[in-house]
Amino acid sequence: MNHPIDIYPIGIVQRRRDKLWIKLKEDFVEGLLGLDAFSHIIVLYWFHRNDIPEYRKTLQVHPKGNPANPLTGVFATHSPRRPNLIAQTICKITSIEHNKIFIADIDAQDGSPVLDIKCHVPSHQEGRGVRVPDWALNS
Amino acid sequence: MNHPIDIYPIGIVQRRRDKLWIKLKEDFVEGLLGLDAFSHIIVLYWFHRNDIPEYRKTLQVHPKGNPANPLTGVFATHSPRRPNLIAQTICKITSIEHNKIFIADIDAQDGSPVLDIKCHVPSHQEGRGVRVPDWALNS
Repeated sequence: MNHPIDIYPIGIVQRRRDKLWIKLKEDFVEGLLGLDAFSHIIVLYWFHRNDIPEYRKTLQVHPKGNPANPLTGVFATHSPRRPNLIAQTICKITSIEHNKIFIADIDAQDGSPVLDIKCHVPSHQEGRGVRVPDWALNS
Repeated sequence: MNHPIDIYPIGIVQRRRDKLWIKLKEDFVEGLLGLDAFSHIIVLYWFHRNDIPEYRKTLQVHPKGNPANPLTGVFATHSPRRPNLIAQTICKITSIEHNKIFIADIDAQDGSPVLDIKCHVPSHQEGRGVRVPDWALNS
């Protein structure tokens, strides 16, 4: 498990004025069939601006960049500094036009490589018995 | 965006009899600080048994392997055949012992490489206004 896994971006996040979309590579358009039946998607993208060895070595952070939050292991956060710079977020689809998925909002930057898109299906148990620390509830 | 991104597994899924855990590489143990304050984690792992070119070229499937479900683009599913074989799942933590996170259940197989672990924080809006097709609600 020490050799790297090769991941090829399937698309890119683009922002222009008040519009925001994921532009899928043309080769992958068939992979969108039926996506219009979902209101939300899970998007996995790459924190490309943090792709330097120092950031990929970061193992502890003050969550949300707030020094008042306790020093916490990156695997107990969604920090953009971590060994594999994969971001995970849920987005509301506003429309789909050929290879572009227009979305209501995303915390990614223009040009972020998109690694995967999955349908979002809420669990019936969502939120039941879930426990989180205080810092995770505050902005 | 055509060059590959190198991802290095941070650990591995292990199963022995009735126990199930993620074994993190020793180098990353500091990244678990504070994880015990959470009940659930998001786990990203690699569908390693599907890592052959044919499966990474799959763009449409009958979801859940059921021919009765409509042919659907892989980006509108959680299919284990897709261009980047990243699985995303939420797991309940049962205990943490040094570099091992014991979990209640996971759909991964023994030996699956783990790419990332993040805390799970349910959204207040979880489930509100979410729309999915019928096939996504049935097993």
